[in-house]
Amino acid sequence: MAAGDTYINKSLPRVDGESKTLGQTKYITDIEIEGMAHAYPVCASVPFGKVKSVNYSKLSEDPDFITLVSASDIPGQNQVGVIIQDQPLFADETVRFVGDVIALVVAETHRSAVRLAKLVEVEYEKQEPLFSISSSQNSSSNFIHETNIACSHRVQKGDIDKGFAEADYIMEEQFSTPFQEHYYLEPQGCIAISESDGSFTIRGSLQCIYYVQKAVARVMGVEASLVRVIQSPTGGAFGGKEDIPSEICARAVLAAKICNRPIKVIYEREDDFQLTSKRHPFEMKYKIGVMNNGKILAAKVELNENAGAYATLSSVVSYRSSIQALGPYVIPNVEVESTSWYTNLPPTGAFRGFGSPQATFGHERMMSIVADKLAIDPIDFRLTNIIEPGDETITGHTLNHSVGIKETILEAQYKSNWTAEKQNKESERYLTGVGVASSIYGNCLGAAGWHLDGAGVNIQINRDGSIGVAYGLIEMGQGADTVITQMVAEALSVSPARVHIRPTDTASIPDSGPSVASRNVVMTGNAIQDAASKINPVVLDAAAKMMNCASSDILIEEDLIKNLVTGETVVFDKLTEFMHMNKYQVVAHGWWHVPELSFDHASGIGEAYFTYSYATHIAKVKIDKLTGLVQVEKIWAAHDVGKAMNPAGIEGQIEGGTLQGLGWALTENFQLDNGHVTSTNLSTYLVPTAMDIPDVETLIVESPDPEGPWGAKGVGEPAIIPTAAAIANAVSNATGRHFNKLPIIPESVLRELSNPKGV
Amino acid sequence: MAAGDTYINKSLPRVDGESKTLGQTKYITDIEIEGMAHAYPVCASVPFGKVKSVNYSKLSEDPDFITLVSASDIPGQNQVGVIIQDQPLFADETVRFVGDVIALVVAETHRSAVRLAKLVEVEYEKQEPLFSISSSQNSSSNFIHETNIACSHRVQKGDIDKGFAEADYIMEEQFSTPFQEHYYLEPQGCIAISESDGSFTIRGSLQCIYYVQKAVARVMGVEASLVRVIQSPTGGAFGGKEDIPSEICARAVLAAKICNRPIKVIYEREDDFQLTSKRHPFEMKYKIGVMNNGKILAAKVELNENAGAYATLSSVVSYRSSIQALGPYVIPNVEVESTSWYTNLPPTGAFRGFGSPQATFGHERMMSIVADKLAIDPIDFRLTNIIEPGDETITGHTLNHSVGIKETILEAQYKSNWTAEKQNKESERYLTGVGVASSIYGNCLGAAGWHLDGAGVNIQINRDGSIGVAYGLIEMGQGADTVITQMVAEALSVSPARVHIRPTDTASIPDSGPSVASRNVVMTGNAIQDAASKINPVVLDAAAKMMNCASSDILIEEDLIKNLVTGETVVFDKLTEFMHMNKYQVVAHGWWHVPELSFDHASGIGEAYFTYSYATHIAKVKIDKLTGLVQVEKIWAAHDVGKAMNPAGIEGQIEGGTLQGLGWALTENFQLDNGHVTSTNLSTYLVPTAMDIPDVETLIVESPDPEGPWGAKGVGEPAIIPTAAAIANAVSNATGRHFNKLPIIPESVLRELSNPKGV
Repeated sequence: MAAGDTYINKSLPRVDGESKTLGQTKYITDIEIEGMAHAYPVCASVPFGKVKSVNYSKLSEDPDFITLVSASDIPGQNQVGVIIQDQPLFADETVRFVGDVIALVVAETHRSAVRLAKLVEVEYEKQEPLFSISSSQNSSSNFIHETNIACSHRVQKGDIDKGFAEADYIMEEQFSTPFQEHYYLEPQGCIAISESDGSFTIRGSLQCIYYVQKAVARVMGVEASLVRVIQSPTGGAFGGKEDIPSEICARAVLAAKICNRPIKVIYEREDDFQLTSKRHPFEMKYKIGVMNNGKILAAKVELNENAGAYATLSSVVSYRSSIQALGPYVIPNVEVESTSWYTNLPPTGAFRGFGSPQATFGHERMMSIVADKLAIDPIDFRLTNIIEPGDETITGHTLNHSVGIKETILEAQYKSNWTAEKQNKESERYLTGVGVASSIYGNCLGAAGWHLDGAGVNIQINRDGSIGVAYGLIEMGQGADTVITQMVAEALSVSPARVHIRPTDTASIPDSGPSVASRNVVMTGNAIQDAASKINPVVLDAAAKMMNCASSDILIEEDLIKNLVTGETVVFDKLTEFMHMNKYQVVAHGWWHVPELSFDHASGIGEAYFTYSYATHIAKVKIDKLTGLVQVEKIWAAHDVGKAMNPAGIEGQIEGGTLQGLGWALTENFQLDNGHVTSTNLSTYLVPTAMDIPDVETLIVESPDPEGPWGAKGVGEPAIIPTAAAIANAVSNATGRHFNKLPIIPESVLRELSNPKGV
Repeated sequence: MAAGDTYINKSLPRVDGESKTLGQTKYITDIEIEGMAHAYPVCASVPFGKVKSVNYSKLSEDPDFITLVSASDIPGQNQVGVIIQDQPLFADETVRFVGDVIALVVAETHRSAVRLAKLVEVEYEKQEPLFSISSSQNSSSNFIHETNIACSHRVQKGDIDKGFAEADYIMEEQFSTPFQEHYYLEPQGCIAISESDGSFTIRGSLQCIYYVQKAVARVMGVEASLVRVIQSPTGGAFGGKEDIPSEICARAVLAAKICNRPIKVIYEREDDFQLTSKRHPFEMKYKIGVMNNGKILAAKVELNENAGAYATLSSVVSYRSSIQALGPYVIPNVEVESTSWYTNLPPTGAFRGFGSPQATFGHERMMSIVADKLAIDPIDFRLTNIIEPGDETITGHTLNHSVGIKETILEAQYKSNWTAEKQNKESERYLTGVGVASSIYGNCLGAAGWHLDGAGVNIQINRDGSIGVAYGLIEMGQGADTVITQMVAEALSVSPARVHIRPTDTASIPDSGPSVASRNVVMTGNAIQDAASKINPVVLDAAAKMMNCASSDILIEEDLIKNLVTGETVVFDKLTEFMHMNKYQVVAHGWWHVPELSFDHASGIGEAYFTYSYATHIAKVKIDKLTGLVQVEKIWAAHDVGKAMNPAGIEGQIEGGTLQGLGWALTENFQLDNGHVTSTNLSTYLVPTAMDIPDVETLIVESPDPEGPWGAKGVGEPAIIPTAAAIANAVSNATGRHFNKLPIIPESVLRELSNPKGV
């Protein structure tokens, strides 16, 4: 009601900070229910084959063994594919990767369930597995599903042949990026209860309560309203808890129904590595046609993704990477093909950035290579082609508002002292260099998921002035509860201390889609404004009645109700008491849906997303010529967030995203052997630690979006997107070699240093 | 959307019937939580005194003993008075009845908690207890609180002296009614959890989740939104779980906080008798001035209630009994005084009818006595004075709608073959007789509780066409979930099978007041209509879009969407799928508040309630002259319910209410000895069983109320109100003696039979 920012654009401390810091938060593993049994999956030990027999005779004598649940127990459908119906809950006929779940052991304890699951003997008729994209592409008879193509997307704009024909230079390069494991601190887990009224209650560490609800309803053959999903405090997710919990919960519910006992499933870390989704490895070909003056005329991009055994979210990862394949640049003639290929590896799916870090690695390495070739400063080259208000994206979407990419480049350039830093300094032992990378990120689900792109909030004001809030998206460690507390306080002009967030629960809010794609602030913020637009007139009317004046005489500001004529003020909870005594309704449901998007899926032309976030990272690296170790000394991370809701929270997201990007770029070397993940713990899979974090200087650029709440756009995923490309550009700059393949581990650095420059 | 009744006015089977019948429903005692401790109250063993010392040294060595919680542990206020602030959570200074809770023992098991609570040694400085209304009235220095008057109400209309002066006859009589124990099948109980974020979660067998929320917030010194109360399936309540759970839950929450463990409290039956509220005993004086033609000119009524040690809900019981003190009759000159007196007995509070059965016993015995005196048929005498549309109640409220009392009398008279039956038949051993009683019942809370008289519902339509419903009032065995399922189905024109009710939860719906006063159908039904008024236009709009026609061409009827022009039909869940894919919002909050009431509390004149339910019971009894046993052979129970939502459910309510009234009238002989309840089990407190139920013929009279949903009014409490008076009138008719005191046990019958007739 009051003008200006009172509670947003402020660094409110985390509302969940104290209980998490003190170790009081109860994660799913901390919850014990009387009578609970424990379940654990029996997994395929071969990457591809037919199941010939399943023998669990070794289990039957064990005092802790309860039962074995498998496909034949399913009352509904044996299907948990989230977009494409290619994934059985139990792989009872064909196993397609090491870790495909064949059955579920139920036992008295977790340890026994884990132990007994390993004693189930499965006989296979083995098939020849396909592990690489090329083997999948080149197979003419060996198909993992009906075809080896999981999905494909294209963008086709202008006249690509004419563009290349008119270009002064044409350059082609290939890039590749590896798997990445989410390594959320809390492994996958849930508790399922079969209720006496035929309904099911599920608690779990998860991102998408409505996906779980839908999957369980399908597997159990019941209506969605009989499936209640309540999110537990979730210790990290990063996309890894988008679709995977659906299968874990569906199996647990089935076991709970059969045993009539609560069932808990918690994955051991090594199995979490083997069984759950990863970031898609990409193989990319970029061909760019450019004029002498640095203007890009044409670009042809081929993206190929290793989807693993099941499509899961590949189609939307592929969609997003195709839309963003050429970054925040204006290019008149474009052809992008993005294809996901089935292989006999763990399924790849949602991971922070959702294909964007991969595509950004491609286009930003390419931009720097072309700039070098043209002998143009890489920042100047980017600015020559940068998208500005009034320009069109590669999908032909004219952007008129909130296009802050240029400001992020200029801000990072200025703060990093770019011109001085870009002069490489070489000492006897060390090389230094800087690299820049910019990115574009479509907010929310875009045209590919538009029908899911609504979200809700429920705001209930109590007699004592306290305010209960439920929303349909989730807190997974990113700070959503804190920002939502601020936005509710701002929208109602009351102190954030009054606002209390309830756990996310399918019973509280209708299907608000998945908690992904940096949707939370934008969707929930707008829903809060919708709810406030219903509550505030009622509150004003009540205030006027209480103060015996016209509602136009009332200002509600900073938790106070002010009569502007008499100067009288009363605190908010006196008003809520008055409202309670005088028949005022004090609850509202708020809803927001992304505006309609005009998009042609065949050509990939149109409004792919309703708005975009932008970022530029500049990385400064120091390379040890003796060991090949790359040390990132500093990252300047400039982000156009539309409008900052909680600057400290944004800094946290950017520092975390940057570090996760650094790990993907340099240290996290995901290894497989015949489909078995061999880097299944922190001694072999080197997730960067707090000690590895470089000095990250967050530069917040505000370019308010008219559709964003208070102008805000998403920042959770953009935080990671340009980092790896900036680091690779810095390493290339320092060494004079092209680092076009991630991760850049010391071995690769030493190998490249032994090659001549510029190859 | 469709006209006519499709899913209401139908006897839908109970939606909770199967799980209750099969024993699958989990009551609070069935729920075990890992790490849970158990608590039990330490109770005063004297009726009145100061606490000198509390010694729990006998407990400290017990391996099961955890801790003793008492007043000094309370972070907030030591106060749980629901209306008057006279009731400490822990009676740490003064105990006012046997059972006043001094402390709470926490132990590892329920049995140990019960055992250890008895080992706490309390020293008292005893005070002279007051047990009867007269001792409380006559005490000039011995006060239980600051005064011995808990509360009082009056109604004063016309000129009472002039009325009596003009009357042909004046008659005076005194009546008295006893305690009644609710004897819900499930004793009081709850589980409290202190959550890691500083909030509390409470599950319990209870009627009023918002009362518990408020009480816990006050005791713990936290905001209401930090207190989440979820109702467990509740095995009967009858008013006995209106305010009592507030204290039980507040103590459990305090113990949960101190011990950092979940705490369960379940009362043993004998303690449930001793500690919890009862029906108020009434002492009543009626003076009636009447003309030769049977017209009543004046009435003076004095009601005195034994409130027990604390006021609890006495003030609203007293209010209701004063308003209804003269039944459904037109009387121009009236004076009613109703006063509640503190005594050193268990507090009396809410009990089905809420003072109405007592006042009805008074006015209906009086009506029959006057009719006998005037030698007018008791039904004719009632019809002479009956209230009809356009008439005024004794509070001066002109009733224009839904005044169905005359129809209930005529219907019962006709069906019972009254004229024939009223001729007493005497055999050597048996006497027979009939009695009639009529009653008026103000719906919902009335002017005394108007500010609490709003209630809400939340309706959420899922993509698959299933519908989740939450409401703020509760199912306590009366069938609310079934009727609400029907009303939602009717309001949305969809099959009841789609509708699923969620447990009542303070987090789902804002403060909807208490689940009392037969509010549920009226309040929730209206709230459902409010929600439907928001949902239906959206659904119609979507249907028109889906069928590519005007919304005026659409009819939604019996789960089908019909295009009236083309004849095309699609089932509802196709529409919800379409809505999900096309940005339609599918949730609505509904709210209804009782209309404004104009009422003057000083004079008791005005709109006491917004509408009234009416009932007439005719009882036929057979009396064994040898044993004094009264057998009720049949009851004709005619009820004006406005509009029947579920006739089978109404029959169930009426049969249950009638039997509960029969128990109060004849068999339930509540006994105390120096403040100790001595009739604490079914061998001494004779609750009638299924074998005792007379033939009850339910006669549903429909007189639709314009404010009621589909015209409905409440029937849960009216079911019990006239029964005891009708039975007493029948016994008086059979014997020719005045039975003015309940219960009419065989001893009293034999004593009266030994007296001459008509005294």
